[in-house]
Amino acid sequence: MIKLFYAVNTCSLASHIALEEAGAAYTTARVSFAANEQRSAEYLAVNPKRRVPAMATERGVLTETPAMLAFIAQSFPEARLAPLDDPFAFAQVQAFNSYLCSTVHVAHAHRMRGQRWADDPAAIAEMQRKVPQSVGACFELIERDMLKGPWVMGETYTICDPYLFTLAGWLEGDGVDLTRLPRVIAHRRRMSERPAVQRAVAAELA
Amino acid sequence: MIKLFYAVNTCSLASHIALEEAGAAYTTARVSFAANEQRSAEYLAVNPKRRVPAMATERGVLTETPAMLAFIAQSFPEARLAPLDDPFAFAQVQAFNSYLCSTVHVAHAHRMRGQRWADDPAAIAEMQRKVPQSVGACFELIERDMLKGPWVMGETYTICDPYLFTLAGWLEGDGVDLTRLPRVIAHRRRMSERPAVQRAVAAELA
Repeated sequence: MIKLFYAVNTCSLASHIALEEAGAAYTTARVSFAANEQRSAEYLAVNPKRRVPAMATERGVLTETPAMLAFIAQSFPEARLAPLDDPFAFAQVQAFNSYLCSTVHVAHAHRMRGQRWADDPAAIAEMQRKVPQSVGACFELIERDMLKGPWVMGETYTICDPYLFTLAGWLEGDGVDLTRLPRVIAHRRRMSERPAVQRAVAAELA
Repeated sequence: MIKLFYAVNTCSLASHIALEEAGAAYTTARVSFAANEQRSAEYLAVNPKRRVPAMATERGVLTETPAMLAFIAQSFPEARLAPLDDPFAFAQVQAFNSYLCSTVHVAHAHRMRGQRWADDPAAIAEMQRKVPQSVGACFELIERDMLKGPWVMGETYTICDPYLFTLAGWLEGDGVDLTRLPRVIAHRRRMSERPAVQRAVAAELA
């Protein structure tokens, strides 16, 4: 059985939602960042990268949200969470998720995790100052060029949707002007009405 | 036919090598960063993200290295560049590539692309100062926990190998202490002996 290691208010919510959408049998384990549990010896044995999410399977541990989302889609094909039989369409799904992971999430991380890339407090403060602009530019590109609607890939719900929903949940905290993102915000609202999303969110807040 | 948009000394080399390994029929188009061609109207029509790589196919344009590498593996299954029939093993490949994209390449980018995340020159200089440490920590994790050897995934060459080779080519420029990375450096040497790698590298330098 799959065991998802998650932390509240992190990108692990995307995989959590995808597991719910897939109808997967799984358990969860909360990792408390407040208690620094991601640096505990117990968690390092799960994921030496000291990050969430991680997913223990009967074959071993998987990490990295884009890889986990594709794995969930491939492991539960009847849920139709990705175009598994069409390499080009699958690559479009993966390209969207890779952009969220390596550009959008990274821009966001400069608000709270600046110490990854600089030590000087003034430099870290400078990074924080630019987050509304850098994250905003990413989401304006998504709004204009990438979100086809009603779902990310158009008419069909995919593993892109829980990931976008998760990162769009950080927009207010990142100080981004929401009025420039009406389609992203409508997508976020549409997502919040799905029972699978509600179940995953409620489980993490419980 | 596939057309790969690449720039010299960028991560597009990984896809270039993979196309060579796959025996794909493809053409290339060089994007000159020195001439700022990635911001030209012509290139923005290909990739509004203003980055390389991009790959034009008969179905449309793909971007993002992890997605493109998986697409190449799936489109040329006879080349056996990924474990396509094993979702768990495929996810391990994808997790490695996602780590390279969202953590290793991002750490590296703070040396030359700091203006993405800060405006103040002093902050950008501070980011540059930390690159040997942040990139070094990523590669030490790869050295210790991720590179199985002789290839990334063990005995079988996959789409992880050209990607690691590409990013490992930046270690000297990033000021990383190579003596702590004997296995990564041996992998880089092993890669440089492959004819497909030599062809892709030679084509980019021509």
